[in-house]
Amino acid sequence: MGAEPGTPSVIKNMNRRTVLDTIENGAPISRADIARITGLSAPTVSAVVKYLLKRGLVREVGPGKSRGGRKPGMLQSNPSAAYVLGVDLGSRELTVALADLGGRIIQRVSGPAVSKELGSHIAESLRSLARELILEAGIDPRRVMGMGVAAPGVTDPETGVVSLAPALGWENIRLRDMLFREFGVPICVENDVNAAALAEKLFGHGKGLDSFVVVFVGSGLGAGIVVNGELYRGHMNLAGEIGYMVVDPSWTQEHGAGFGCLESLTSESVIIDRATVELGMALPETGSDPLRIERLFYLASSGNEAARKLLTEVARYLSIGLANLFWVLSPTAIILGGMVAKDNGEVLVALIREHLSRISPRTPELYISEIGKEAGILGAISISLKEVKMRLLDETFTPQLAIGAD
Amino acid sequence: MGAEPGTPSVIKNMNRRTVLDTIENGAPISRADIARITGLSAPTVSAVVKYLLKRGLVREVGPGKSRGGRKPGMLQSNPSAAYVLGVDLGSRELTVALADLGGRIIQRVSGPAVSKELGSHIAESLRSLARELILEAGIDPRRVMGMGVAAPGVTDPETGVVSLAPALGWENIRLRDMLFREFGVPICVENDVNAAALAEKLFGHGKGLDSFVVVFVGSGLGAGIVVNGELYRGHMNLAGEIGYMVVDPSWTQEHGAGFGCLESLTSESVIIDRATVELGMALPETGSDPLRIERLFYLASSGNEAARKLLTEVARYLSIGLANLFWVLSPTAIILGGMVAKDNGEVLVALIREHLSRISPRTPELYISEIGKEAGILGAISISLKEVKMRLLDETFTPQLAIGAD
Repeated sequence: MGAEPGTPSVIKNMNRRTVLDTIENGAPISRADIARITGLSAPTVSAVVKYLLKRGLVREVGPGKSRGGRKPGMLQSNPSAAYVLGVDLGSRELTVALADLGGRIIQRVSGPAVSKELGSHIAESLRSLARELILEAGIDPRRVMGMGVAAPGVTDPETGVVSLAPALGWENIRLRDMLFREFGVPICVENDVNAAALAEKLFGHGKGLDSFVVVFVGSGLGAGIVVNGELYRGHMNLAGEIGYMVVDPSWTQEHGAGFGCLESLTSESVIIDRATVELGMALPETGSDPLRIERLFYLASSGNEAARKLLTEVARYLSIGLANLFWVLSPTAIILGGMVAKDNGEVLVALIREHLSRISPRTPELYISEIGKEAGILGAISISLKEVKMRLLDETFTPQLAIGAD
Repeated sequence: MGAEPGTPSVIKNMNRRTVLDTIENGAPISRADIARITGLSAPTVSAVVKYLLKRGLVREVGPGKSRGGRKPGMLQSNPSAAYVLGVDLGSRELTVALADLGGRIIQRVSGPAVSKELGSHIAESLRSLARELILEAGIDPRRVMGMGVAAPGVTDPETGVVSLAPALGWENIRLRDMLFREFGVPICVENDVNAAALAEKLFGHGKGLDSFVVVFVGSGLGAGIVVNGELYRGHMNLAGEIGYMVVDPSWTQEHGAGFGCLESLTSESVIIDRATVELGMALPETGSDPLRIERLFYLASSGNEAARKLLTEVARYLSIGLANLFWVLSPTAIILGGMVAKDNGEVLVALIREHLSRISPRTPELYISEIGKEAGILGAISISLKEVKMRLLDETFTPQLAIGAD
């Protein structure tokens, strides 16, 4: 391998990636050690490090120990080289956060969920929230180099279009283009469950796992699939839409009125409707959904037979869905998020475990998500970080946050 | 990129792979065109081609057209550079075949399925079958450089162990080690449905598809999954064991006596047992299973109500299994093999399509396997070809077929 000049750009970026990863994993580290670990030549390492220093992606942290001769300059990565914005378009609330290149959230703000009347409204309100965050954080807006958005629905990361998001009342929204016009930096749009899977990989139970699945159980039902360390989206981005699984042989589409079989047996609103009728549960004072499902969990765990019976039935269907998912993919782990990630969800998970062992000779490693409600925003940040880190390896990448101008 | 000497071996092999692929796809081709297409330097291409010529992997095929100056030497790949043996350990019959590096079968032989009394028997009988094939083909035994084996059951390609193959009565058979002792060339062991998936990728409906699934419906039920062009095996090699899918909410393990829910509702033997009782089908004269399922297919397609009713029920469960598989993976295509790949299976596939559209808002692209019964042996050849082609790029690979000595 020659030094940098004249190297084809694909190889050049690969070498830069390799050196940056090596510095991130082994910092502080000398150029000689980078060469030893990567197998790259000393001139190549030297040229690559020069680029990374110029970009601000790494920094010198004083001399290391000498092994004879001059003390080597030690290097480490620089998380403040760039920042990204993360947006979680939750069906209950909107969250925007500013994070550094190390994935640390610097500032965050939450507000009411986006309304159905969209127009350019969403881009504008995100713009003012973002400006506020950047101002409060006191960072140079030019260092904000990307934005990641987690959306509840069918999204196409290639085109940035949210084709269907019933929770927001959206259909075929060209979200990336709308936001790019307003912000001027690379925008990544991803399905919220996929984003959650990425977040679990970086910050949760998925850390170090090559293939795992995040199953979101809540207002809807969906799975985010990681295969060989990468998100697997499937043809037409439909992989993991397990709400459409059929778990009852008498099922036909007319039964669901647009919803899938498994979803129509296990979604939060269905459970709450049934509980209201079957248990005669009074509405809690606040009248909001989250409290109600938690109340049902509480009743079931404190011995209410009717609540327990209802959750047992829900658990039976969810177990069938998880077993079927398991026998297709055999993932190393299944991480449960959504309503079961809340503190009171353990009663449902225990019932699921119980029924799973009854119906399947092998059962998946089941985890309850620890990042829980944070999965969406952390996932949004993760996808943007991945994109920005990749782009920063190319000298032609010079984003300019539009909102920094005024 | 420098020339060959001194290049790290991983880069060297990558360059050799790139040049060989370029020659295979564009032959006949000149060194200059290889350099242009690959972006490799002329000295690198020259050094790599020299190696490939020495290995016999490519050959010169006379001068091409000059673009001014000397006429360039043209290159093409050489399928007789090496041969591999493929073995399909079918539950009904054993097939062994000899194929060249281009995947063309030169000689083949079939015999009765391997017996349950294994010992070293399997290795010995394969040895004599292989010797026979090589002799008949009239090729130099030293050119036979690998063997691929497709086994019906749970196999571990890493260790070459068949941990469970009820169809052969095998448990924890160290097949790769046994065969390596006898043959002395690299042995690849793979589950037969996975092997079939590879065969579909190279020779069947999977050609050019990045992500697809082969579903085998027959004595058992299993899926071979290709994701991003590679076999996906899952944790513990259990991915695609869809016979264990649960398609009836009242199912528990006690119902299956070791078999999975979906399998116990749809396997060939179950269908035949039910047909025998419910239709009072007389045993056909030969008494062999394949004829019986074909007879049921024939009866159903020629209007026998009872046969049609039975197959409709089987199709209902199979559709549920396929829908559930689809909503997990969203593969570009599902290719059906096994009993439905036979000429008479269309009646069952038509019933499956019908029910699928009733239970699922989107349905997978369904294909009937065209390579059918050949999938096992073609898959066995494919896995060995992949291994041998990769190893041949390394100069230290010098296999010596043990049976060539006498």
